[in-house]
Amino acid sequence: MANTDSVSVRVFSLNCWGIRYLSKHCPQRYAMIGDLLCKEEHDIVLLQEVWSEKDYLSLKKKLACSHPHSHYFKSGVIGSGLAIFSKYRVHDTFVYRYSLNGYPYMAHHGDWFGGKAVGLAVLNIGSLTANVYVTHLHAEYCRDKDSYLPHRVVQAWELQQFIRHTSAGADVVILGGDLNMHPQDLGNRLLRTYTGLKDSFLETAKFEGCEDGLTLIADNPFITIKELGPFEKGIRIDYILYKGSPKSDISCNFMCTTKGSVPDHPFPYSDHEALTAELRLKTQSVTDAGSDGQSKKQDSAAEKVAELVDIVTEARTEVKVGLHCAERMRYTAARTGVMGLALLILELAIAAVPWLALGAEQPFPRTSFYLLAALCFAILLTTTLLYIFYTMELKSLQGAEDQMRLAVGSLQEKLRGFPLAQPHNPQRRSPEGQEPKAFDPEE
Amino acid sequence: MANTDSVSVRVFSLNCWGIRYLSKHCPQRYAMIGDLLCKEEHDIVLLQEVWSEKDYLSLKKKLACSHPHSHYFKSGVIGSGLAIFSKYRVHDTFVYRYSLNGYPYMAHHGDWFGGKAVGLAVLNIGSLTANVYVTHLHAEYCRDKDSYLPHRVVQAWELQQFIRHTSAGADVVILGGDLNMHPQDLGNRLLRTYTGLKDSFLETAKFEGCEDGLTLIADNPFITIKELGPFEKGIRIDYILYKGSPKSDISCNFMCTTKGSVPDHPFPYSDHEALTAELRLKTQSVTDAGSDGQSKKQDSAAEKVAELVDIVTEARTEVKVGLHCAERMRYTAARTGVMGLALLILELAIAAVPWLALGAEQPFPRTSFYLLAALCFAILLTTTLLYIFYTMELKSLQGAEDQMRLAVGSLQEKLRGFPLAQPHNPQRRSPEGQEPKAFDPEE
Repeated sequence: MANTDSVSVRVFSLNCWGIRYLSKHCPQRYAMIGDLLCKEEHDIVLLQEVWSEKDYLSLKKKLACSHPHSHYFKSGVIGSGLAIFSKYRVHDTFVYRYSLNGYPYMAHHGDWFGGKAVGLAVLNIGSLTANVYVTHLHAEYCRDKDSYLPHRVVQAWELQQFIRHTSAGADVVILGGDLNMHPQDLGNRLLRTYTGLKDSFLETAKFEGCEDGLTLIADNPFITIKELGPFEKGIRIDYILYKGSPKSDISCNFMCTTKGSVPDHPFPYSDHEALTAELRLKTQSVTDAGSDGQSKKQDSAAEKVAELVDIVTEARTEVKVGLHCAERMRYTAARTGVMGLALLILELAIAAVPWLALGAEQPFPRTSFYLLAALCFAILLTTTLLYIFYTMELKSLQGAEDQMRLAVGSLQEKLRGFPLAQPHNPQRRSPEGQEPKAFDPEE
Repeated sequence: MANTDSVSVRVFSLNCWGIRYLSKHCPQRYAMIGDLLCKEEHDIVLLQEVWSEKDYLSLKKKLACSHPHSHYFKSGVIGSGLAIFSKYRVHDTFVYRYSLNGYPYMAHHGDWFGGKAVGLAVLNIGSLTANVYVTHLHAEYCRDKDSYLPHRVVQAWELQQFIRHTSAGADVVILGGDLNMHPQDLGNRLLRTYTGLKDSFLETAKFEGCEDGLTLIADNPFITIKELGPFEKGIRIDYILYKGSPKSDISCNFMCTTKGSVPDHPFPYSDHEALTAELRLKTQSVTDAGSDGQSKKQDSAAEKVAELVDIVTEARTEVKVGLHCAERMRYTAARTGVMGLALLILELAIAAVPWLALGAEQPFPRTSFYLLAALCFAILLTTTLLYIFYTMELKSLQGAEDQMRLAVGSLQEKLRGFPLAQPHNPQRRSPEGQEPKAFDPEE
């Protein structure tokens, strides 16, 4: 295979903020987005928060010429809001619904109803197989007291699992979306370190757009300063990530973002800024890829594994915090339910006394009786539903924690396989009762 | 790589029927299963319906010496019931929860609460990477009028997607579990044809056990003749499937099942029979694998793709049936909800008349008023929950249908790439508005 095969792929990502009737200027903004995509003709377009399938279908119609292939990822009650438009044929798709995604009773936050997920579309770019992922993680409503942090960490964990396990056969991996995490946030480090995905903003040769690549900025008229909290200028939570394989080399030549306004239009495309990354894909022979110094490669691999052990341990701690919280909530639901039941039994007992002592006068005013009974039933029903919900949350958190423990054990064993590289003292976090074994460091 | 590396792997699979307090002789049967596994020392043990984590933990304790590595896949309210015990270290795990899994209000069938899923464990067998899957699909309660068929077909669809997408990096793929499908059922054909997995019962050189490999048999004292319906002798619904890769050749030397009773014990291990398959894994060089006649290989590949088109089309039809049914159910829920609301408004109006015409006598007896109001609220709440549930069901069915349509289109394009092989006339099932394009038949 010659090293001359080179193709440029332009990837676009935007959180469309497409809540019909609620998001400001929704139809006008969709029209603007459609015009932009028609004109710019990006190769791959990754959209989030396209909540209404009608909006997806009208975009599909508009982009029929520029982007003949597309897919809308369905999930949850409302949908995942994820869509992909592509110049390359979509051969195969798959969707993974995150096991945790906020709380149904936090209806004003709405995340639970959205059924957040990660969508995978398999494309062929020339002779290369590309796995393109689009996702949207749970929003962060309050950074100081972020009750959704364990959920988002578990989502990041499942996202990296999904990408790692499904991308073994891919020559190119591209992930675009609104991760709702700052660049150095735990979930982001977990995702990038475990999968080896590179951040196009950090890697790009040339950048045009908002300072520091921010994607939620104070200059955007849809954003209130209050939303940004201590980050007055804005935050970077939307990303285009990528990685190659032994068969392909990938780099970012150019990246740009919108800057909070659109020329000749009264308002921007969305409350988020749109990202465009120009990626260069080179087909390379396997011998080219393996030409680096072997020992240097092993050293950096050992460092990476040690870093991963630390990150996964940190994530485990965060999940444990979530576990304690969910356990407490479930306990509260159970206790309230038992109190509701006790109240109901007490009421029935009081009402039964005169009924048993035939003829005695009913001491209970009827209205109060029925109101109280209705209240008891409502309490019982609500607490039962909450108990079931918290049990499911607990199972998911425990499942993630189990997997993380197993991963730490496996990573530590990998570390022991590296001849001199144990910089992070694996004994400190040794898994229970696992004996050290020989391990292939290249595995 | 020499062709001499050969290793024998014994795989065990059993649906444990482990519903605490409800399944007959549950603790005694777990003790028997534990003894069996300790004694037989299979290399990989795949268990289903281990509903209680306590039972898993006691098995884990008992098998600490024979099977030092294990994982319990958590999901749903109760759990997935899936567990793996292994002699080989489990390096990595991942779980995929099926998007559809029965109805929560069919509590006596219980499938919804179980959160059915497929679990993946990544093991190293010698120098080979093995992806081991364990799963349990939705039960079939009535074959003639199987209202869960669309759910099971979607589960089979998601199962094959999960296996295909996650196994690209694996040298060996093993799937064990209770598929709740007969060998020639739609979902089973879909799974085997799409993934290329082979059925160890059909492939084995030597077999000992129930006639026709049946795993739910009339001779089992826990089975009533009624359950088996027209299949008097029994049915085969538990499987061990496998496939190799260019790097490894895999075959089944021997397979056996239990036969409805256990010597020296008054009852069998479970209501299902246990399967054991002895697989032989050979590491092979890539040149060995590619030595077949190229044109013959292409012909059979074309036939396989044509067969797949037929099967996926059949599955699409089944999913569409499910879609219509879910739409009807959602419509009924909505209509009932509207009627409940109308009744409530009517009642409030009647009650409001004398209240507005001050002093007029209340025509409504209080008891009836409160009872009727409570009824209306109950109807409204139930129908709202049902409406949300059916909407989610619809989204999942539509999602699967979309993916199937896309898959059929992609497969048909693949067919066009084969020079002379269009035995099934792809024009007949041509996807909407897709133009024929050149395609790599080896892809």
